[in-house]
Amino acid sequence: MSPNETHDPALASWVDSANAPGGDFPIQNLPFAAFRRAGSAERFRGGVAIGDRILDLAAALKAGFTCGAAGLRSAAGAAAEHALAAAAGPALNELMAAGPAAWSGLRVALSRALRRGARERTALEQCLVPQRQAEYALPARIGDYTDFYTSIHHATAVGRLLRPDNPLPPNYKWMPLAYHGRCSSIAVSGQAFRRPIGPRLAHGAVAPTVGPSERLDYELELGALVGPGNAPGSRIDIADAESHLFGLCLLNDWSARDLQAWEYQPLGPFLAKNFATTISPWVVTLEALEPYRLEWSGRRAIRSLSRISTLPPCAAAERSTFGSRLTSSPNRCGARAAGLAGSRGRATGMPTGPSRR
Amino acid sequence: MSPNETHDPALASWVDSANAPGGDFPIQNLPFAAFRRAGSAERFRGGVAIGDRILDLAAALKAGFTCGAAGLRSAAGAAAEHALAAAAGPALNELMAAGPAAWSGLRVALSRALRRGARERTALEQCLVPQRQAEYALPARIGDYTDFYTSIHHATAVGRLLRPDNPLPPNYKWMPLAYHGRCSSIAVSGQAFRRPIGPRLAHGAVAPTVGPSERLDYELELGALVGPGNAPGSRIDIADAESHLFGLCLLNDWSARDLQAWEYQPLGPFLAKNFATTISPWVVTLEALEPYRLEWSGRRAIRSLSRISTLPPCAAAERSTFGSRLTSSPNRCGARAAGLAGSRGRATGMPTGPSRR
Repeated sequence: MSPNETHDPALASWVDSANAPGGDFPIQNLPFAAFRRAGSAERFRGGVAIGDRILDLAAALKAGFTCGAAGLRSAAGAAAEHALAAAAGPALNELMAAGPAAWSGLRVALSRALRRGARERTALEQCLVPQRQAEYALPARIGDYTDFYTSIHHATAVGRLLRPDNPLPPNYKWMPLAYHGRCSSIAVSGQAFRRPIGPRLAHGAVAPTVGPSERLDYELELGALVGPGNAPGSRIDIADAESHLFGLCLLNDWSARDLQAWEYQPLGPFLAKNFATTISPWVVTLEALEPYRLEWSGRRAIRSLSRISTLPPCAAAERSTFGSRLTSSPNRCGARAAGLAGSRGRATGMPTGPSRR
Repeated sequence: MSPNETHDPALASWVDSANAPGGDFPIQNLPFAAFRRAGSAERFRGGVAIGDRILDLAAALKAGFTCGAAGLRSAAGAAAEHALAAAAGPALNELMAAGPAAWSGLRVALSRALRRGARERTALEQCLVPQRQAEYALPARIGDYTDFYTSIHHATAVGRLLRPDNPLPPNYKWMPLAYHGRCSSIAVSGQAFRRPIGPRLAHGAVAPTVGPSERLDYELELGALVGPGNAPGSRIDIADAESHLFGLCLLNDWSARDLQAWEYQPLGPFLAKNFATTISPWVVTLEALEPYRLEWSGRRAIRSLSRISTLPPCAAAERSTFGSRLTSSPNRCGARAAGLAGSRGRATGMPTGPSRR
């Protein structure tokens, strides 16, 4: 895939707030969420962020919006139509399962319909909901959740906390280490939860005690939402891997480090991570990130890769990474007083404009 | 809970095969499964094993069978009626969520209706499906799956494989160690799957290689199906724990030991366990196991418990274990030739008759 008309930095939307410099949701982004009006009994449905609004896809479908009208050829049009109907449902699973052609078709149709001068404006203007009036559900029903330990900087830092003498395990540079997270405690940004209680061994103590975690930690991570699956036991070629990835969200992998240090041998973290995982409501599609593609960073990475017999270095070394700067601002306000840990970060899309890197 | 009329060793059923000595499914057992006729397009529904038959609960409901007719008092009757309707659905989740009063009411109603001389015989005889004509689905939609490392004998044996010098980690005797398993590869007995492929480090090698597992292993375990849940962050008193447990099934926790030895530090097993977990179709209710309750085995266990500040020893030391002898018979027939590892064990209920211990 390479950048197409939807990535053109010159595009502007008839939704004026989408054109504000530095905004999270310009017409080049178009991330998806499952939303409804806050406090209402409406059913959740798919929406697309545009400026400070959400285009309600269920309402758009009802108002007669079709992808075909956007001038897509018939096969692409049919795939896009399917994607639109899927995205109007209560969760994005069906859209995510529809695959890259459908995602791409829907993206181009939405981009054309939201551009300045689009004749769809009249119908779609009534399908916009202000983001400040919305509440969000998890974007998808999540059946399994794999937590990868992919950043060598992070792995070294956490390793130093738990194993000062030997922070990086010998397998680290040979394979992507991962474990299963707990699906049932994943919630969207704004999630409030109780500080976890569990056993931990105080420094120098011979017996553990049980109590609220004293070393509650957060981790700024990215969540990757897998769309089309594969048959059990079949493998996906690394060159095809991206076609299975619908998009990315922000993810906070909350961690109770004192519980983790005591429990994690030999089966990995469990109670230390079970209590909460927070994700952003907005899922930025991989296609939206196309202009941010980068080479792997330099010779060191490639040399390290070529040592790893599990990966064909050529494929993996191509422009298969994305540049994105993520920031976090811990907010302690009220958290201690209420006995709650909360993630009050801004729900944000990742690409914040047409500039690259 | 203590044994009641449903556990009476003298009970016999009008389904003659249920009365055969040493059978898996006497009237005292009454385990649940989700089933349909093999090769049919019928929808899966709940059934109860009786002898070599399955009582089709959806058909029984349709045939006018009610729990009220079994002489239950009104509150118990209503709970049982709800349980029956829930059990007739495509998976047992709703039944499992209904709680002990509903489970118990349905059990007594089924026991009375299946006894010799029951007037329900005429209606229910037409609702029996031979087990040899049935195929099974997972008994429930499984949202999260926790793998506990509870047997000290097993933990020592596996620990010796992976860490000959230090088989038991220091936390082992202080808390139940556990990790998340993969829900999406759990299937019912008869599950066939490909031998997993992954990286492993040969003895004495400095670099890992990738290939099919050469040390595929099985583990005979019990699966515990959790029924009613609790609010996130709230705790369940150990004295109430059993009321959240619907029942037990057999479970084979397949393991690729060579992959496990290389990957498991520091995050626990992942690829070594992801490819398959096999469970029996039949779920034996905790209530059916009531006559098999045992004291904790002797002073050693109690002394060990009283060292653990996380558990109130009194509650945990009461008759909170069950005696059950489990056997496994590996069947290599054809597995190697087909490149498949299969679990062809007999789908069996656990209590195999009225004898205790």
